[in-house]
Amino acid sequence: KRGTILRCFAKRLGLWLFLPLYGRLGEFARSGRGSSLFGLRWGWLEGGGDLGKKEGLAVVLGTPTATPPKWLGDRSPKILPGDREGRRRNFGGRRHYCFSSPPYREKTARILALLTKRYGRHPAGVGFQVEKELGCHGTVGCYCPNWRGAFRGWLRVKNGKIDALNAAWETVFWNQTNRDLGEVELPHLTGAEANPTPLLDYYRFALNLGRAYNCFQVNLLWNNAPGRFFTHNFMGFFNDLDPFALAKDLDIAAWDSYPLGLIDQMPLPQEEKVQWARTGHPDVAAFHHDLYRGVGRGRFWVMEQQPGPVNWAPHNPSPAPGMVRLWTWEAIAHGAEVVSYFRWRQAPFAQEQMHAGLNRPDFQPDVAFFEVQRVAEELSALPIPPAGCAPVALVYDSEAAWVFEIQPQGAEWNYLTLVFSFYSVFRRLGLDVDIFKPGADLGGYGLVVVPSLPIVRKEALEALSQADGLVLVGPRSGSKTENLQIPPELPPGALQALLPLKVVRGESLPPGLLEEAEGPWGRFALGVWREWVETDLPPLLRFTDGGGILFRRGRYLYLADWPSPELLFALCQSLAEEAGLHPRFLPEGLRLRRRGPLVFAFNYGPEVVEAPAPPGVRFLLGNDLWFPKLSS
Amino acid sequence: KRGTILRCFAKRLGLWLFLPLYGRLGEFARSGRGSSLFGLRWGWLEGGGDLGKKEGLAVVLGTPTATPPKWLGDRSPKILPGDREGRRRNFGGRRHYCFSSPPYREKTARILALLTKRYGRHPAGVGFQVEKELGCHGTVGCYCPNWRGAFRGWLRVKNGKIDALNAAWETVFWNQTNRDLGEVELPHLTGAEANPTPLLDYYRFALNLGRAYNCFQVNLLWNNAPGRFFTHNFMGFFNDLDPFALAKDLDIAAWDSYPLGLIDQMPLPQEEKVQWARTGHPDVAAFHHDLYRGVGRGRFWVMEQQPGPVNWAPHNPSPAPGMVRLWTWEAIAHGAEVVSYFRWRQAPFAQEQMHAGLNRPDFQPDVAFFEVQRVAEELSALPIPPAGCAPVALVYDSEAAWVFEIQPQGAEWNYLTLVFSFYSVFRRLGLDVDIFKPGADLGGYGLVVVPSLPIVRKEALEALSQADGLVLVGPRSGSKTENLQIPPELPPGALQALLPLKVVRGESLPPGLLEEAEGPWGRFALGVWREWVETDLPPLLRFTDGGGILFRRGRYLYLADWPSPELLFALCQSLAEEAGLHPRFLPEGLRLRRRGPLVFAFNYGPEVVEAPAPPGVRFLLGNDLWFPKLSS
Amino acid sequence: KRGTILRCFAKRLGLWLFLPLYGRLGEFARSGRGSSLFGLRWGWLEGGGDLGKKEGLAVVLGTPTATPPKWLGDRSPKILPGDREGRRRNFGGRRHYCFSSPPYREKTARILALLTKRYGRHPAGVGFQVEKELGCHGTVGCYCPNWRGAFRGWLRVKNGKIDALNAAWETVFWNQTNRDLGEVELPHLTGAEANPTPLLDYYRFALNLGRAYNCFQVNLLWNNAPGRFFTHNFMGFFNDLDPFALAKDLDIAAWDSYPLGLIDQMPLPQEEKVQWARTGHPDVAAFHHDLYRGVGRGRFWVMEQQPGPVNWAPHNPSPAPGMVRLWTWEAIAHGAEVVSYFRWRQAPFAQEQMHAGLNRPDFQPDVAFFEVQRVAEELSALPIPPAGCAPVALVYDSEAAWVFEIQPQGAEWNYLTLVFSFYSVFRRLGLDVDIFKPGADLGGYGLVVVPSLPIVRKEALEALSQADGLVLVGPRSGSKTENLQIPPELPPGALQALLPLKVVRGESLPPGLLEEAEGPWGRFALGVWREWVETDLPPLLRFTDGGGILFRRGRYLYLADWPSPELLFALCQSLAEEAGLHPRFLPEGLRLRRRGPLVFAFNYGPEVVEAPAPPGVRFLLGNDLWFPKLSS
Repeated sequence: KRGTILRCFAKRLGLWLFLPLYGRLGEFARSGRGSSLFGLRWGWLEGGGDLGKKEGLAVVLGTPTATPPKWLGDRSPKILPGDREGRRRNFGGRRHYCFSSPPYREKTARILALLTKRYGRHPAGVGFQVEKELGCHGTVGCYCPNWRGAFRGWLRVKNGKIDALNAAWETVFWNQTNRDLGEVELPHLTGAEANPTPLLDYYRFALNLGRAYNCFQVNLLWNNAPGRFFTHNFMGFFNDLDPFALAKDLDIAAWDSYPLGLIDQMPLPQEEKVQWARTGHPDVAAFHHDLYRGVGRGRFWVMEQQPGPVNWAPHNPSPAPGMVRLWTWEAIAHGAEVVSYFRWRQAPFAQEQMHAGLNRPDFQPDVAFFEVQRVAEELSALPIPPAGCAPVALVYDSEAAWVFEIQPQGAEWNYLTLVFSFYSVFRRLGLDVDIFKPGADLGGYGLVVVPSLPIVRKEALEALSQADGLVLVGPRSGSKTENLQIPPELPPGALQALLPLKVVRGESLPPGLLEEAEGPWGRFALGVWREWVETDLPPLLRFTDGGGILFRRGRYLYLADWPSPELLFALCQSLAEEAGLHPRFLPEGLRLRRRGPLVFAFNYGPEVVEAPAPPGVRFLLGNDLWFPKLSS
Repeated sequence: KRGTILRCFAKRLGLWLFLPLYGRLGEFARSGRGSSLFGLRWGWLEGGGDLGKKEGLAVVLGTPTATPPKWLGDRSPKILPGDREGRRRNFGGRRHYCFSSPPYREKTARILALLTKRYGRHPAGVGFQVEKELGCHGTVGCYCPNWRGAFRGWLRVKNGKIDALNAAWETVFWNQTNRDLGEVELPHLTGAEANPTPLLDYYRFALNLGRAYNCFQVNLLWNNAPGRFFTHNFMGFFNDLDPFALAKDLDIAAWDSYPLGLIDQMPLPQEEKVQWARTGHPDVAAFHHDLYRGVGRGRFWVMEQQPGPVNWAPHNPSPAPGMVRLWTWEAIAHGAEVVSYFRWRQAPFAQEQMHAGLNRPDFQPDVAFFEVQRVAEELSALPIPPAGCAPVALVYDSEAAWVFEIQPQGAEWNYLTLVFSFYSVFRRLGLDVDIFKPGADLGGYGLVVVPSLPIVRKEALEALSQADGLVLVGPRSGSKTENLQIPPELPPGALQALLPLKVVRGESLPPGLLEEAEGPWGRFALGVWREWVETDLPPLLRFTDGGGILFRRGRYLYLADWPSPELLFALCQSLAEEAGLHPRFLPEGLRLRRRGPLVFAFNYGPEVVEAPAPPGVRFLLGNDLWFPKLSS
Repeated sequence: KRGTILRCFAKRLGLWLFLPLYGRLGEFARSGRGSSLFGLRWGWLEGGGDLGKKEGLAVVLGTPTATPPKWLGDRSPKILPGDREGRRRNFGGRRHYCFSSPPYREKTARILALLTKRYGRHPAGVGFQVEKELGCHGTVGCYCPNWRGAFRGWLRVKNGKIDALNAAWETVFWNQTNRDLGEVELPHLTGAEANPTPLLDYYRFALNLGRAYNCFQVNLLWNNAPGRFFTHNFMGFFNDLDPFALAKDLDIAAWDSYPLGLIDQMPLPQEEKVQWARTGHPDVAAFHHDLYRGVGRGRFWVMEQQPGPVNWAPHNPSPAPGMVRLWTWEAIAHGAEVVSYFRWRQAPFAQEQMHAGLNRPDFQPDVAFFEVQRVAEELSALPIPPAGCAPVALVYDSEAAWVFEIQPQGAEWNYLTLVFSFYSVFRRLGLDVDIFKPGADLGGYGLVVVPSLPIVRKEALEALSQADGLVLVGPRSGSKTENLQIPPELPPGALQALLPLKVVRGESLPPGLLEEAEGPWGRFALGVWREWVETDLPPLLRFTDGGGILFRRGRYLYLADWPSPELLFALCQSLAEEAGLHPRFLPEGLRLRRRGPLVFAFNYGPEVVEAPAPPGVRFLLGNDLWFPKLSS
C-alpha cells in the first residue's frame, strides 16, 4: 500500500525522495574493517537507490559533512570549532567543524570522492543537496586560531596594506590601530563593545568561507558526478549567511518550512502566537517561498515540510487538521517545484524522536500521510501553469540584517521584523510579491519596496534608478557606507540622487513611547524609530509637532520612521492603487496567491467565510465557501 | 534557663541535638601543629558530647566532607570539580569536590577514621548524618577528566561491548558512533543539543557515584562505630539524585524543611507567592514529609526546620506568628520522629549570617524558641500513636524528572509541578497520601495515582498490576524505553497490558492556548500537553473536537492530557468516592492529617474558621474554632 | 562663524575645551618611524593648543591610558585583564588593562613623561583629566594571577598574620580557613556563594588599586607639569569605586551627565521611563550634581553633557526641544563651574558614530549648538553668585552599596534606589540638598538624612553626634561591623549611642506583599523590607499588627522599614517643617534650585504652569509662566 502512495507521490506530486546521509561518515574509516561496515551503509543507501529504480523515484543525495565522526575530531582536534566564549566546542550534537579547517577540507574531499565513485553515475541519482542547513545552531562564525589566521589572510586581500585597513575601520577611535595584519584579533571577548566595522567584516568573511566551502563541494561533485543539479536547504528567518550569495553556485534553492516551529521565534505578541499556534502565521511560509524563489532565480523546493508536531521549539503543537495539505498547496501556489516532507517516518530515538513524520514510529501512516495523499490526487487532476511575475517587488538584504544586529541603536529595531511587516501588508492587500537582492533588475514592477537598505552599493542605486514603478524606501536606508560609517553627505547617502533630502538625526524610542502622526490616510501612533529630515520636499505625512515622516519626489518615496502596521497598510494600499495594482482588503485569516490564470485562496482562520471570488469564476478545488483550512 | 528548654526538648519533644561538623576538616592536617589545633575542635565537639551526657541528649554526628579544606585542593587540585562550562571550580563556597576523585576518597577515609577513633564509641553518640544535602548547588554532576574516565568505566560495565552502547544510544543518528569506550565524551559544550540517551546515562551515573560515595562513608563508619544509625538530610524539590536509591543504605531519611524559602522556587503565580509568603504553601512541607517518609521506609526526621527568615531565597520574609509551632506539628502529624531546628543560634558572620535561629546572635531566645517550647509542652501532654497507612498512594520517580528535564518537549512541562498538583488535590480532599517509588507494593490502597512514569520497568508494571484499588495513570507514562526511546508498540508501552490503548501523538501548547473539554464532571479548559489516543475504549471525557482525554478499563484509568487543577479535583474526588475514601472539600487554607486515632487540623489561612469536626469529637489541643495557625 | 561661538563659549559661558586623547598612545612606539607618526598626533593636539591660544581657550588634557595599544598587549599579554569567568579579555573595546599590572605602570609612566615633556608647560594648558570614567564597563575588578598576588599582599598589610585574616573573615564557617596568605583565592567561580567578607575586601582592594593608579598619574603629572589642576570624569549611578576616596587626590570632581541614557538604567516602572524619556528624570542630573559637588569639596564640572541622542542605551531618544539649555542651567544652578559637551562633532565612524554632538557629522551645527549658544548669551547678561550651603544634608556611602550588593537579602533592596528616593522627596519639597560621605561635618544643617549606613565607623558616629539638626537614619544602618558581620549588640550597632533600640529581626518581602501602616501622617502600604525593634521608645508610626516603624529620641529618628515614596514625603515634610526649612509641595515636573539670591525654576513636564513665585519677585530669565522646559 505504501508503495502505491510513494509512486503516487513520485509520479503525480512530483515528490522527490531525499535520502539524508547525516551521520554516515563515521564508519567510513574504521581501521581494519572500514570498508565492509561502510559497505553496510552503502547497502542501505542502495536500498534507496533500488527503490528509486523500482518506483520511478529520482534520488537527491545529501553530502554528509554536517556531522564529522568522532575519530576525526580525536585525530584532528582543530576541526572542532571555537565558540564566542573562547572555548573549543565538544563533539556531540552536529555541525561541529570549522569552515576554515584544512584537515576538514581534506576529509571532505575524501568522502565526496568515495561517494561519487560509488554513486556518481547511479541511474537513480539526479542531484545533490550540498551540506545541510549551513550555519544552523549559530555555527557560521568560529573563534579558533585557524579561523583568525584565515580572517587575517582575507583582510590582506581585501585591504592590501595595513594603513588601508586602519582607515577602513577608523581604528584611530579608542586606539585600535594595528601595525600589521598579523596583529588583528577576532572581535570577541572585548571588555567594551568592539568596533562595528571589523564586526561587519567578520560577517562578510564568514559568508565568504561558507560560500567557499559550498563551492568546494560543488566542484568536487561536478567533476565526479556530471549532470546532476545542486541545491541546499536554507532555513527560516536566518540571515547569518546571505542565501543570495550562496545560491550563486547552486541550481535550485530549497528551504525547510516549519510554520509552527517558527512561531516561537517570531517577535509576535503572545496572543498572536496563540492565535496562529496550530496554523502558523499566514505569511510566514509564503514569505520564505517568495524569498527562496528569488534566491533560486525562479527555482525553489521545500526540502523539509513540517508534517506534524516537531521537537525543537519551546512549544510544539499539532497542526490543525488540513494544515499539511494547505501548506503544500501554498508552496505549490508560490512556485515550489517539489515539496518534500521531513521525515518519512518518525525516528523513535535520539534528539529528534519527538519530530513527527509522514509515518509514525510504528510504521503506520500518520495524519499528514493522508493529507499528502489527497494533495497528490488533487494535483493529478489539476495542470499547474508556470509561475509568473508578481506585481510588487521587495528588496531584501542580508547585509542589512548584519548592520542592524551590530548596531541596532534601539532594542526593538530588527531587520526581519521590518521586512516581514512590509511583506505582510501586501498579503493583506491580496498582492503577490517577488523578492530580490539589491542590484537586481526591478523593471516591470508597478511597485518596489525597500524596507531598509543601510548600505547602498552602486548596482543597487542603478537598479532603483531604472525601476519602472513607484519606489518606497524605508528608514535608515543609505545610512552607512560600505565600511559601516555615516556617509559624508549624511543619510540616505547615495540615495540622495533619487531623493533630495538629508536625515540629520535618528532616534530610537522605548516601548510605549508613541507619537501622533496625521495625514491624508488618517491618524497613526508611531514608535520604535524616528528621523529628522532636512529637505525642500513637502512632507506627505507629519507628526503633530510638525516633523515630516514621508517625502516624495516623482515616483520615489522616503519613509523617515518605523511604520506601524496601520500606517504601512494605508500607505501601501494607496501606492498600489496609484500603480494600478488593484489591492483589496482581505479578512484576517485569508490569503490569495496567483499562479498563471489560477488563483489560490487560503483560509488560515477558524471560521468558514465566503470566497470573495467574482461571479462566474470556476472553482477547481473547493467551492465558494472558504472552509478552514484551504480552498482554491 | 536555656538548659531547661534544651532538656525539655530532649526529653519531651524528642529533640536530638545535631552538631554539624562543617568546616572542621580543614585544620586537621596542618603540618607541625595539626593535632593540637584539631584537638581544639575536638574539644568543641566534646562540649556537645558532654552536654549530651549532662542533659540526656543523644548526639547525631555529621560527617564533614562537604567542605574540603583549602590545603587539600592546593595539594590535589583535581579534587575540585569541573563545571558544565568546562572550567575548574574554585575553592570557596562549599561542596567543592568531585565524587569521582580518588584522592578525595582517601582523605574521606582518613578523616572518618580519626573521627570514629575518637568518637565512634562515645556514649552520647547514637547516629551519623552522612554528608550534608548531597548535590546541593548543582554539584551532582561534574565535567572533569577523572569523572569522564569513571563514566567510561561505568558504561563499560553497563554495556559490555561498544556496539551495545552504540545501539542503546542509537548513535547512528547525527553520526555519533563511538569506535570504543575510550572515545565517549561527556555530554556538554556541544554545538547542537546532545543525544538524550547519554544525558540520561549521565544522570544515572551521577546517582551511582553519589550512592557509592554515601556507601563508602557508611561502611567506614559502620566498621568503626558499631550500632549507630545512618541518616542524610535531603532537600525540597530536588531530584538530581534519587533519594529512594540513596536511602537504601540509610536507616532513616531526613530532610531540610524551609517552607518560606521554597516558595520562590515553586512555579506559582506571583499572587499565590504573596498569599503564602509568610506561611509557606499549605502542601509543600506535607508533600516532602510524605515523600521522605516513603524514602525512609516509614522513618523520617526533619533535620533542619526553618525557624525564622532565611538568607538564601530571593525574598526572605518572617514567618507569620505561630508558624514554627504549626510546621512542627505538621511534621509530627506526618510521622516525623524528630524535628530539629536549623540553627540553634543565628551566626553573626559569613554566608549565612542572615539565617535566623532559635536564638538570636546576641544569645537571646528568638521568636521560634518560645513556639518550640510550647510544642514541647503540648507534646508532653499528648501521647502520639504510630503513623498508619494513608488511603491514597502516589508513585514518584526521580528518573521521570530527569527524562522530562532532558526532553521536556514543551517549556511548561515540569515533573515536580505535575506531581505536586496531584498531591495538592488530595490535600484539598482531606485525604492522606503515601508516596512510593515505582515497583513498591501498592496493595491495600483504595486509590493509586501515577502522575507520570515515562519509563515503566518490569517491577513497576507488576506492582501496578497487583494494586488493589483504582489506578490513575497520567500523561506520557510508558512513553519511553529504558534507553529513552519511543517503545515500538508506542506509548504507554508496557502499560498497554493494563490499558489497551496507543498514544499516537503528543503535543505541547504555548501559554494561553487552552482547549475546551466536556464530561460528566463539568467543563474544563486544558493546556500545556495533549495526546491523541487510538483505542477501542470509549473516552470518559472528550475535547469539544471529539478527542478523548480519559480512558478506563476495569480499575485502570489513563489521563491523556496535562490536567488543570479543576479537572484533577473533580476526577480525583469522583475516584475517591468510588473507592470509598470519603473525600471532603476543605476550604483554601485548611488541611487535615491523621495519625492513628488523632486528627490534626491546620489552618494556613488568615481567617478564623469553624472546625468541620463531627459533633462529640474531643479537642485535645485548640477548640472548634480554627484560629490561625494551628488547631488539633 | 563657529570661531565666534567657540570664543563666546570660552569667554562667556566659561566653557573649557576638553581634548580627549583616547586612542593616541598606539602609534607612539612604532619601531623605526614612531616619532614622526606620533609627531603627527602631537600636531593634531597642537592644533587644539593653538586654537586655545587664538581663541583664548584653556586646555584640559586627558591622559590616554584607557586604551593601551595593540602592540603593548601583544608584548605584555598580562596587562590584559582577567574576567570573572576566568578568561583573559581580548584587545578591542577599551579599558583593557589590569590596575595591578607592573608593565602597565611602566608604560603609563613613559607616555606621561613624553606628554608632559612636550605639553607640560604649554601656555594653553591649565589642567589634566586623569584617565577617563575609571571602572566603566565593569573593569574595576580583575581576576588575573597578578591581581591575586597583589590582593594577597594588601591583605598581608591589612591583617598582618593569617590568624587575624581568618578571624576577620570568620573562615571557620564552611571550612574556609587559610593556612597562609599565599593560599587566599579571589572570590569567584565558587560552587556555592563566597564568603561576604572577602568579597567586601575585594571591593576595598579594588578601590585601593584604582586610587593608587590615579595617584601614580597625578604624581607624575604634578612633577612634570607644575601648577595644573587635576580632575576626573565620574559616572552616573556608579559605585564600583568610591568617588569620595578617589577625589582626595583631585582638585575638582567632574561627571558625565547623560540624563536620557541613564533612564534605562534606573529602576523605574516602564510608564515613568516613557514619561521622562525625552527629558530625563527631573532629579537624576540634580542628584549627581549635588553628589559630585560634595565629592569635589565644592568644586565640580560637567565634563560630558549629553547634547542629543546617544548610542549606548537600549533606547536612545532625542531630547525634547530646549533640554540641553535646561540641563546646562540646572548644572549651573547646582554650582557647576564648567559645562562641557560631549562631543564637539558627531564622529561618523566606529563604536560611537550614533552619539550626537554639538555639530553634525557634516560639520553643520546640530540642535544643541543653538541651545548652548543661547545659554551663553543668557549667561553673559547674568552675574552668577557663588553656591551656598543647602538646608538638607544627605549622607552617602559607596561601601553601603557594596555591602548590599554582596548580601541584598531581598531582591528589591538596592542602595541607590533608596538614596535616590530620599533625594527625590526633597526635590519635590523644593529643598536643596548637600551630599556628604560618612564622617563629614554635618554642622549647620537643619535636617540630616542617612538613607542607610550599614557600617558605622567612629568618625561617622561622631559627625552624626555633633550634627545640629534633626537626623533621620534609615533601615539597616549600623547592621554590620567593618568585617561585614552582625554587631554583637545587634543593629544599629554603634548608633545605639544615639538611638537606644535593638533591631532583632529583618525580613525582605516579595513584590506585591505590602503591609498597612498607620500614624499621624496617614496610612501607608509598605513593602520590600521590614524590621522588628526592641526598645523603650514609643513608636511614632506602627503597622496595624502593632510593630513599630519609626522611633525617635531627641533629634534622632530611626526608620525601621523600606519607605514608600508617600511615607517618605510625609515624614520628610514634617521634619523639614519642624526644622524650619519651609518645604513646599511642587507639582510633578517642577523643580527649584537656589544659588545665592537667585532661584532657578525648571519645568520638566509637558504643560505650561504658573510660577509659584512670591509677588514682586523679579524674573531675570523667563516670566511668571513656566514654559516647558525652563524658567528662572
